[in-house]
Amino acid sequence: MDYTRFYHALGYGFKQEDLLTTALTHSSAGTPNNERLEFLGDAILSCIIAEALFERFPFASEGELTRCRASLVKRDTLAHIAQHLGLGQYLCLGGGELKSGGWQRASILADALEAVIGALYREAGMPVCKHVVLRLWQTQLDNLSPREISKDPKTRLQEYLQSKQQPLPEYRVLTVAGAPHAQLFQVECIVPCLSKSTYGNGDTRRRAEQNAASQALTLLTALYHDK
Amino acid sequence: MDYTRFYHALGYGFKQEDLLTTALTHSSAGTPNNERLEFLGDAILSCIIAEALFERFPFASEGELTRCRASLVKRDTLAHIAQHLGLGQYLCLGGGELKSGGWQRASILADALEAVIGALYREAGMPVCKHVVLRLWQTQLDNLSPREISKDPKTRLQEYLQSKQQPLPEYRVLTVAGAPHAQLFQVECIVPCLSKSTYGNGDTRRRAEQNAASQALTLLTALYHDK
Repeated sequence: MDYTRFYHALGYGFKQEDLLTTALTHSSAGTPNNERLEFLGDAILSCIIAEALFERFPFASEGELTRCRASLVKRDTLAHIAQHLGLGQYLCLGGGELKSGGWQRASILADALEAVIGALYREAGMPVCKHVVLRLWQTQLDNLSPREISKDPKTRLQEYLQSKQQPLPEYRVLTVAGAPHAQLFQVECIVPCLSKSTYGNGDTRRRAEQNAASQALTLLTALYHDK
Repeated sequence: MDYTRFYHALGYGFKQEDLLTTALTHSSAGTPNNERLEFLGDAILSCIIAEALFERFPFASEGELTRCRASLVKRDTLAHIAQHLGLGQYLCLGGGELKSGGWQRASILADALEAVIGALYREAGMPVCKHVVLRLWQTQLDNLSPREISKDPKTRLQEYLQSKQQPLPEYRVLTVAGAPHAQLFQVECIVPCLSKSTYGNGDTRRRAEQNAASQALTLLTALYHDK
């Protein structure tokens, strides 16, 4: 099989061509097939996407991160990227799947892409695998509803108060402790329409403010029973 | 907080103590807490365990690998390991959880252990994190029902035929192709009680035989509707 165009689209050329062939072999074509590599690739992909989201959205909650990851690793997203790679034409399928057009079925494409990621990890290790995956997923990562997820708590608090026509919060640094290279800031967030201040700690003033703002948001949404 | 004993049990000492403290802070104690690190650690742990199983059980099916991983990363396994680390006494809990004994609740312990793994990954990177996790999970990995999962297809085929008092299979190398460093073996597996042979490919004779045996097992279990 001539994988030249596939390697180009993937951004990586396999040295062990038989490993790639296994990754592209559906179980309908016999053994060895891509099921084990799919198991591995699924875990590797989940891990790479989790880390990318964790770093990209430092103020997203666990729930937001989980929802974003689910949308990035779901079958249809995988099948879309597989189609972009032209993966279907390299699949090795058994007779029944061939006749029924299995090379364009979303589940078969998605599984094979996971297996290719598993094979890539086996051959090239995590740093290369991560680089390839993040390039393939770049558009999907860039298109994640940033309106919802990337807003930090200070911005959300400000917008929330504006929407309720309330005065904006004030932040005050209360204490700065620790050595110069490892400072700890304690910040107070004063929201006029709340009867008490909230507090946040952090290794920068900004992080401490974000944490205090996050607490204020929690209080406000608990008080007003909305989001 | 004096983490000396915890570091000893974990096999790693954190340089960023505040990162560890965040990992040990339950959401009941406010913000920042361990929810985001738990999201990350869950993915890292899944990935490390998936790879360990993939390597340890080269003949396990995807289904067997999935079942084994589920048992290794389930809440009770995590809580057991967390207890072994004495993690409960380092937890930072809010008033309600403290009063109700949250430091010994399985879900809180499991989540905090995942968060510690996430923090470890952030501070020390994948190789160190993998080393620590595999040491913590060593007993669990060693105790995986090897009776079921680690047997290779040739052994299982032989035992199956013996249990049915049938003659044993024969293996024949049909072709050897490719350059000396990248050979491909094709092997035939002849099972007397089956009307047709099965075939397997592999880069060693043994792997090709295992694949042919696996095909024979599939046929036999399909024919006899049992396992």
